[in-house]
This record gives sequence, structure tokens and C-alpha cells, in this order.
Amino acid sequence: MAVLDLASILGLILCAVLVVYGIVFGNPIDYLGNFYDFASILITFGGALCCVLIMAPDLKTFFKYLKSFTLILKVQKINEEETIRQIIALSNIARKEGLLALEEAANSIDDDFLKKGVLLIVDGTDPELVRSILETELNCIEDRHAEITGFWDSLAAMGPAWGMIGTLIGLINMLRQMQNPETIGPQMSVALVTTFYGSMLANWICIPISTKLKSKNASEIMVKELMVEGLLSIQAGENPRVIEEKLKSFLSPARKAAFSQEEGGENIG
Amino acid sequence: MAVLDLASILGLILCAVLVVYGIVFGNPIDYLGNFYDFASILITFGGALCCVLIMAPDLKTFFKYLKSFTLILKVQKINEEETIRQIIALSNIARKEGLLALEEAANSIDDDFLKKGVLLIVDGTDPELVRSILETELNCIEDRHAEITGFWDSLAAMGPAWGMIGTLIGLINMLRQMQNPETIGPQMSVALVTTFYGSMLANWICIPISTKLKSKNASEIMVKELMVEGLLSIQAGENPRVIEEKLKSFLSPARKAAFSQEEGGENIG
Amino acid sequence: MAVLDLASILGLILCAVLVVYGIVFGNPIDYLGNFYDFASILITFGGALCCVLIMAPDLKTFFKYLKSFTLILKVQKINEEETIRQIIALSNIARKEGLLALEEAANSIDDDFLKKGVLLIVDGTDPELVRSILETELNCIEDRHAEITGFWDSLAAMGPAWGMIGTLIGLINMLRQMQNPETIGPQMSVALVTTFYGSMLANWICIPISTKLKSKNASEIMVKELMVEGLLSIQAGENPRVIEEKLKSFLSPARKAAFSQEEGGENIG
Amino acid sequence: MAVLDLASILGLILCAVLVVYGIVFGNPIDYLGNFYDFASILITFGGALCCVLIMAPDLKTFFKYLKSFTLILKVQKINEEETIRQIIALSNIARKEGLLALEEAANSIDDDFLKKGVLLIVDGTDPELVRSILETELNCIEDRHAEITGFWDSLAAMGPAWGMIGTLIGLINMLRQMQNPETIGPQMSVALVTTFYGSMLANWICIPISTKLKSKNASEIMVKELMVEGLLSIQAGENPRVIEEKLKSFLSPARKAAFSQEEGGENIG
Amino acid sequence: MAVLDLASILGLILCAVLVVYGIVFGNPIDYLGNFYDFASILITFGGALCCVLIMAPDLKTFFKYLKSFTLILKVQKINEEETIRQIIALSNIARKEGLLALEEAANSIDDDFLKKGVLLIVDGTDPELVRSILETELNCIEDRHAEITGFWDSLAAMGPAWGMIGTLIGLINMLRQMQNPETIGPQMSVALVTTFYGSMLANWICIPISTKLKSKNASEIMVKELMVEGLLSIQAGENPRVIEEKLKSFLSPARKAAFSQEEGGENIG
Repeated sequence: MAVLDLASILGLILCAVLVVYGIVFGNPIDYLGNFYDFASILITFGGALCCVLIMAPDLKTFFKYLKSFTLILKVQKINEEETIRQIIALSNIARKEGLLALEEAANSIDDDFLKKGVLLIVDGTDPELVRSILETELNCIEDRHAEITGFWDSLAAMGPAWGMIGTLIGLINMLRQMQNPETIGPQMSVALVTTFYGSMLANWICIPISTKLKSKNASEIMVKELMVEGLLSIQAGENPRVIEEKLKSFLSPARKAAFSQEEGGENIG
Repeated sequence: MAVLDLASILGLILCAVLVVYGIVFGNPIDYLGNFYDFASILITFGGALCCVLIMAPDLKTFFKYLKSFTLILKVQKINEEETIRQIIALSNIARKEGLLALEEAANSIDDDFLKKGVLLIVDGTDPELVRSILETELNCIEDRHAEITGFWDSLAAMGPAWGMIGTLIGLINMLRQMQNPETIGPQMSVALVTTFYGSMLANWICIPISTKLKSKNASEIMVKELMVEGLLSIQAGENPRVIEEKLKSFLSPARKAAFSQEEGGENIG
Repeated sequence: MAVLDLASILGLILCAVLVVYGIVFGNPIDYLGNFYDFASILITFGGALCCVLIMAPDLKTFFKYLKSFTLILKVQKINEEETIRQIIALSNIARKEGLLALEEAANSIDDDFLKKGVLLIVDGTDPELVRSILETELNCIEDRHAEITGFWDSLAAMGPAWGMIGTLIGLINMLRQMQNPETIGPQMSVALVTTFYGSMLANWICIPISTKLKSKNASEIMVKELMVEGLLSIQAGENPRVIEEKLKSFLSPARKAAFSQEEGGENIG
Repeated sequence: MAVLDLASILGLILCAVLVVYGIVFGNPIDYLGNFYDFASILITFGGALCCVLIMAPDLKTFFKYLKSFTLILKVQKINEEETIRQIIALSNIARKEGLLALEEAANSIDDDFLKKGVLLIVDGTDPELVRSILETELNCIEDRHAEITGFWDSLAAMGPAWGMIGTLIGLINMLRQMQNPETIGPQMSVALVTTFYGSMLANWICIPISTKLKSKNASEIMVKELMVEGLLSIQAGENPRVIEEKLKSFLSPARKAAFSQEEGGENIG
Repeated sequence: MAVLDLASILGLILCAVLVVYGIVFGNPIDYLGNFYDFASILITFGGALCCVLIMAPDLKTFFKYLKSFTLILKVQKINEEETIRQIIALSNIARKEGLLALEEAANSIDDDFLKKGVLLIVDGTDPELVRSILETELNCIEDRHAEITGFWDSLAAMGPAWGMIGTLIGLINMLRQMQNPETIGPQMSVALVTTFYGSMLANWICIPISTKLKSKNASEIMVKELMVEGLLSIQAGENPRVIEEKLKSFLSPARKAAFSQEEGGENIG
């Protein structure tokens, strides 16, 4: 089961709490009802969603994009150290028992990308071709991720835009019929609610999701680049110690030190 | 006949419905007439279109750009899996009957780009030259697409700009003659209508079209890059299984799995 | 004589007509005089021009930049098909009579860039050096064009900035002396005129010019890249049919078809 | 002990002094209390922090990012000249006593990156591999730094966004209940305080920190690139004078002259 | 002595004249005093300067950046034609008397970069190393220039930001104490003065300086790239006529024609 991502969930909920607090306590005479207006919800959220619907390749993809929201709630299962250890283990097998012995080892690999790479090596594929196939795969993964973050970026731009359109509609209507000066305030208040909705949609939901997904993508691509380097080194028959040195370059100084220590411990044990 | 693109059409229509809803029901005393003003339409849409007309290479190209609107209404006929199968079939022919046998096969190819590539191979063109010719073609396709999306991006920028110019004109006129305080509201209302028009032009029409066309371009270029890789592999006489492995890197994991299964099924059948 | 560029001229004039229309008919009691204010003209246009004057390398270059305005009024004399035909003709001469025979042919070439390339080939310059010289020339042409479009981009940014500065000056003065409430409207009206001027300067003049010049630059560079490819193919002694195939990659499908047909027709004729 | 960074500390404090001055003396009847509002603090700072919390990989990293604030208070201990001297000394050792003699010298090197490079050379690692390992390390350092500056950039964008959301909440509440015209001013005043907070968060704290960290990163990467060049030159057995000439290219003219003079002085002494 | 840069000085002064004109004559009852407010000056200019102080590496560099203002007042002493002539002369010497004869010629070269390049050639440095050393130097020059323009860009962004902060402070204070409606106008007027200051700082000073320095940097880098090309051609022993042809690619058509004519004249003379 996927572990929940505390940072994202906490941030999402606290934001909502703060806004409700601001609405209720910012001014003693306020109440949440001021911020509920059905027509405003329709024009802002509806308008923004319709526009990203226009941009979507098809309806199915549109809902797939929307569902990507859940991705930020789960902790990413990426462990650079574990991957490095796995690659070093593979390089030891290859050195001792030959490249063909990797076929059996490949069965216990969870990561599809690493598995595919190992099988390409076992098949005796040309190193240049291995790199080309894995890099094409990497580029296509990045393209697919960029499509999803592009969806949230578009929604983040459309939210405030439709919020402003809603406010313009409210203002134009209000200004046309100003017979009763007492209703001007409440009418402007309702007109501004769409701007509020649009701003919340962008800043509370879309921008954080997009940024988080971009950061998750960067981590994933980094581990996959580490795999490509490791696989090509295994195929070239490089020394496991050199491979370890090479792959440790991907770690931060603190994690590098921890990794080396642990490795040392394992060597002793 | 081209299949209609439900996502684009639905989004476009729903947006308009939502805006009309916002105009009519946002405030019980409103009516659509508040949002119709001939001078405002002229200054906003006219101004924005005139400015992109200045930017256009010539009148004919300007209308061609405007007509590209219809592109987003049709579903793109791109099928990566079909293309991969076609290339594998071609590679089987080339392996069994030689590169010259591809000439006949080329006749049944619909895609002009793939056909041109196959004919270049049949002509015995140098692989480096084949890649160079196909990549020049790819770059020129991208340049032409970028011109069209650039047109919609310019219009998306000009819409709000001319909306603001229209509002400025209205405000300057209104402020100069404020004898009657009762007309201030309606006059400001009319002044704001141009801002509303400009914002709708950008957010309802131009930005979604531009984003959709960019995404369609990305899909098309991706399939064409897949073709280039496949064609060069055929010319190099690579093994059809290796070519399949290589081209499958362009697919997402889900489609990759579906493709492999289907292939397996075909093999059995 | 240069042919006038209808799209640019029409767009420029129509824009002005629309603005005058908006000023005069947007509100029955308006008149153009509201939009003429000498101090506003000085501060907006003067301020913006002075700032791009600060940026200019020297006074002479500043006026050269301003004069580049006339470039958008003339239709660009670029004809890819004609250039391709010219290069194929040159390659036929080179094939039949040798590279030295190109010297005579060079005399009838109008385009300086193509001429220089042909003469470099005649001189027996090393192919690598030919490419390097022509690409340096291409880069320097792009740099010079980028300077000019940069000038219009700077002016497009300075227009609204000085318009806002003018409006701020007007507002600050007005707010300090508000004894007579009846003058507030007209004074604000005058203050807003500078924002109107700045917005017109950017959206009516500078942005369209800059975009048009960028598009003209792209066409010119594309034809020159086509020339470089063609020249290097001639020097490499490639087959005229292969050269044609290569250069046709620069054309759009429609123009490619038209070109092939025409060529066929010529062959018959 | 780290030396304090006078420029950063002075700037940070002076900014606060100026704002307090502006608040207190900008208008004789003002007082700091106008600018303290608990709900406003919560919504602006809380909202902005919650949103960057959503973006953070996990809680621990979030606090690590926040703590990076202290980095700008310390002067960076980077000394290009010292590094160049160190590398020349190493190249002299390598020339006279062989590459293996560098192992002992490596012990006295403080910088981990330089030390790792020297040890790779001592191990007889292939030059291409040395460059690849060091450049991977360099890229990963840059990626980690970019994550931190990205955090401050996100906070700089979220500050004004949540300031505006707070102001919208205040305005919507105020406009709904405008029975008492006398309270409109103070209520709008409170509503604007969040915009003030957001603007201060971005312009006083986040943007300067982000810019400073980017500049520190650039200096660090530059010295590390200098080390890579130097290490590869040592491994290639280049002449120490040539190495000095090469590495001096990284210095500004003034520092280059000072360095040469000093070196000359040392040679004499 | 450096020649004064008329374009920059004229532009800077005219801008100030125009603003004073706008302040004094924009409205008959205005006077310059409306635009002087000590607290506003402190908060806008002080705040912006403090923030770029936070970003500066140290106090000394901060003042060095500020002093770079004077750079735009001096005409740049760059003469591509003169440099080309100098390089052709050097190539003639190298051809006739050998590379070593360049040592004496190097003494009469003013430009440090060209001199260093010639001396590297005289020392018999490997061509690849000469290119690498000169390009490192070129990159470091660009980095140093980018730091300075980055300083002015940061100040250009901080000016309007602190102008807005000052205006917010003024508005918040004013709105809190609105007992006397007659003081609202003048108080808002003072509040807006900071926005005016910030906008002037950015648009009158910082953006023009930054743009001018970027254009000066581009010219300088272009001449230095011309030098690198020339030096490597000299070292490769290329024909002076070919070198001239190569370097003339850096000139615009008009200057190329003028240069060739002059050269012809010299040959005759």
C-alpha cells in the first residue's frame, strides 16, 4: 500500500483551514455564506475546467489528468541508495558468472525500466543501441509527465482568468442598474467572489500540484539516469568499485557519507 | 471523414453556456443585452484582428491561419501502435525480399512522410542523407505548426490589450463629461464590456486553441520521430524484434503492455 | 520597386480607423479632442523614445532602428521555389562543366549570400570552411535582425511604462488639489490619456512590427539555410535529383506538390 | 567559524528599518499598530507556507529548505586564487614524483570535491571516466541548489498571491455589510494589510535570498569547473605553467594581474 | 580619454526634462513640490537598494556594481574593421617570418585578449588548448558582465515593488484614520508618489542601463569571437585572403562593402 504524503496532505488541509479562519475571524461580522455563490462557482471552476477540456486530447485523457491529483497524496517510492546497491549486486553477478547470468537476477527486479535494461544486456544488444533505447524511453516518460504538469499549469492560468471574467460580468451588470445605492456593496462583494475562487483554484490547488509533480518527475528521472549509467557500466564490464564510485556521484554529500558507512558496515558484517 | 473531437467541441460550447448563465443568473436583474455593444465589438475584436493582420505575411496566409481553428474540431488520426506494426511489416519484407521489395509496399502507405522515407531507402540513398532529409522535413513541419500557434498566441495577447484600450477610451470619454451622475454607472458598464470581450477572446478561444494545436503537433512529431528511427533501422538491416523493442520505447507502459499482448495474440492466431 | 505589403498597411490603417470610431461613436457625447493632450504626448511618446535612445549604441543607429519601420510595408522578395531551381541549375552546370564553370554563372545571381557561396566553391575552399564562413554570416545576419526587433520590443515595453508614469503624474497632481469636485472627472480623464497613448504605441505599432520583422527574419534565414545545404551538396558533387529531393524538404506539402508538378511540366515543355 | 555576510545582514535590517520608518513617519498620525493584524498574518504567511509545504518532498526537507535562510548570513569561503595555487602545487608534485605521490597530498585538501578528484587520478581511473564522474557530481550539486532556490522562488510567488487572497476575503466581507460608512476605511485598511505582508515576504525576504543563493551557487560551480579543468590537466601531465595559464582564464583581469604579480613575488622570495 | 556616449546622455537628460515638464505643465495648478516627499524617497529608493544589497556578494562588489552606471556614458571603443586589419597583418607576418615573429608584433597590441592569444600561439600551444583557454576566458567575461546586468535587472524589479510597498503603507495609514475627508486626496497623492518613484527608477534608469550594457557586451563578445577565429586561422597557417574572407562574415553588408573598398584603396596606395 502506498504511504501517504504527509507534507502534501497537511499543506492542502491547513490552507483550507486558514482561508476559513480568514473568512470567519478576519472581521467579527463575517460568515462563510458570503463566500458561497452557485453562479460564481459555475463560471469560475466551470469555465476553467471547460477550457482545459478544450485543450485535452480526448475526454478519457482529461479525466486521467484530473485523477493525477491523487499522485501528490502518495509518498514516492524512490530510493537511490537501494538502486545503487541493486546495480552493484548485478555487476558482481555479471563479473563472476557472466552477462547471461543476469537473466535470472532480472526476475527479482521490481522496476520495469531497470528490468528492461538488464534484459537488453542479456540479449547481447549493442551498447550504443541499449543507451539509445533507454534514453528514448526516458524522453517519452518525461514527455508524458510534462503533459500532466502542463494540464495543471493550464488550469492554474485559467482559474484567475475565469475568476476575472466572472467579476467583469458581475461589475457590468451591477453598473448598468445602480438605482439602489445600498445594493452596490453586496453586488460588488458577489462579483469579487469569482476572483477569490479563481485565485484559490490556482494557488491552493493547481500550482502546488504542478510544482510537486515536477519535483517528483525530477527525482524519478534522476534515478532512471543513474540506472542507465549503471547498466552501461555493467555491460562494459567495469569494476564494481568503480561503478559504486560513479553512481555515488548522484547522492548528496550527507547521503554519500551514510551510504559509504553502511556499505563499510556490510563489508565488516 | 474526419471524426469530431468531442473534448474540444464540448469545452467550447460549455464555456459559452456558462458565460451566458453567469450573465443571466449571476444577478436576477441582469440580461444578455448588457453585454452587447457594437462599438465595443469593433474595437476589441477588430483591433485584435487588425494587429495580427499586421503581423501576417500576407492576406491569404492570414485567412489560412484563421481557418486553422477547424483543426481542433477534428480528432487527430495518429496511431502509434499501427505505425509500429507497419514499420515491423516493412522490416520483415526488407529482410526477406531485400530493400528493393519495399517499393511495392510503399504504394499502400498512406502517410506521405513514411512513404517518402521508404522510397529514399529503395533509391539506395546514403543513411546519413536519409536522416538529414527526414529531419529537415521534420523541422520544417514544426516551423509551420509554430507559425500557426504563434498566430493564436498573438491573438490571445492582443485580445485583452485591445479590450483595455476600449475600456480606456470609454473611461476617458465618461470622465470628461460627468454632468449627470446617474449615467456614470451605465457608461462604466459599457466601458468594461470591451475588457470582458478581450478576456473571452483570449481565454475561451485563443489560448485553448493554441494549447491544443501545440499538443497535436507534439503527437505528430513524436510519431514522425518514431518513423525516422524505424526507417533507419530497416535500412541498417536490423532484426525486426530489435526494431519492435526500440519503437515500443515510444509507448506509455499501459500501451506497451497492450501492444505486446496483442502482438502475442496475433502470433498465436 | 518593392511591392507594398497589403496585410501590414491594411492592418495599420484599420486599427487607427477602429480607434477613432471607438472614440467618436463609443458614446454619443464624445469627441476626438478628448484624446489630444500635448503634455501627455510628450511624456508618453517622448519618455518611451528617450529610454530606447539611452539603450541605442549611438544616435545614427537609433534613427536606423526607427527607419526599420518601413521594412514592414514592403513585401519580402523571398521565393523558395525559385532558389531551389537556381541551385539545381547550378548543380547541373557544376556536374557537366566542372566547379570552375560556376564562376560565370555566379555573375547572374542577385542574392549576395548565394553568390558569395558559389565564389567560395569556385575558389576551391575547403567544404568545412565554406560551411563555417556561411554559418558565421548567417549568425551575424540573425544578430543584426535581433538588434532591430529588440529595439521595437524595448519600445513596446517602454510605451505602457511611460503611459503609467504620465497617469501617475496626473493623479498625484489631481489628488493634491481637489478643492473643486467638478474638475476631478476631466482631470482623471486627462491622466488616463497617457495610459491610452502608451497602450496604443505598444499594441498598434511596436508589437506588430516586432512580430512581423521576426517572421520575415525566419523566412530569410530559412532560405539562406536552404542555400547552404544546396551549396555544400553542389560542392560534394551530389546528383541534381538528390539535391532537389533534399531541398524540397524545406517546402510545405502543398508547395512541394506544386513544385514537382511544375518541374514535370517544364521537363515536358 | 563562518564569517558573517555584512551585505546580506545590513540589507535585511535596513529594509526593516525603512519600512518601520515609512509606517511611522510617512504620515504624522500613523502608528505601527495599523500594520499588525493576527488574522492577516495567518492567512498570508500561513497560506504561502502551507502551499510550499504541499510542494515539498516531505516535512524534513521542508524544514531543511527553511533553514537554508541562514546560508545567506555567512560569507562564502571561496577563493579562486588559492584553488589555482593548490592545483599548480599538485601538478608540480605529480610531475616530479608521479601521480601516486598525490595520494599523500590529497590528505591535506579540505575541499571534498577536489580531494575526490585527486584520489580518482591516483587510482589510475580513465580520464574520460574522471571527467564523467566529476561532471555528474557537479550536475547533482547544481540540482540540489536549484531545489533550494526553487523553494524560495515558490514562496516569493505565493506571498503576494496569498496577500491578494487575504485582501479579497477582507473586501468581500466588507462590501457585504456596509451599513456603517465610517467603518469602510478601517476595514479596507485591514484588508490591504495582507497585500502588504505578501509583498514584504516576497521582496524583503524571498527574492533577495533566492538571488543571493543563485549567485553563491554560480561562484561555487565556477570554482568546481576550474578544479575539473585543473585535475584533467594534471592527469594529462600538462606543464604547470600551461595549467596556470589555463586556470587564470577563470579570473577577472584585475584579479589575474594581482595573481600574476603575487606569483612573481613568490618566485623571487 | 573616453568619448562621451551622446545617445545615453541625451536620453537620460531628456527623460528627466520630460518628466519635469509633465509634472509642471500637465496641469496648470501643479508644482514640482508635489513630487518631493522624503519618507517616500527613503522607502522606495532605500528599500530597492537594500534588497539588491542583500543580493550582492559583499559591500565592495555592491559599490562596484553601482559604479557600472558610468559605463553607459562612454562610447565603446570597438572597431571590428580595425581588428580584422590587425589580424590580417599578423597573419602576413606569421606567413612570411614564422609564428615566432609574432612575439615582437604582440607588443604593439592594445587588446589584452588578442595579445594573450598571440602569445599562446608563439609559445607553440596546442590549437585545441588555445581555443579552450580563449573560450574559457570569453565565458568568464560574459559571466562577469551578466552579474552586472543582473544587478540592474534586480534593481529594475525592486523599484516598482518597493514603490508599491510604499503606496500600500500610505493607503493603510490613510484608510485607518479618515476623520477628515478633505485630507484623503493629498494623502493618496503622497501614497502614489512612491509608485511614481519606483516606476522612474526602473524605466528611466535601470532598464535602459541594463539593456545598453547587454548590447555593449554583445558587441564586445562578437569582436572577441572574431579574434578567436582569426587567431586559430593564423595558427593553422591559413592564407591571409581566406582569413579576410572569413572575418568579413562578421560585418554587415554595408560595412563589408566599405571595408573591401578601403582595402582595395590601400592595396593601390
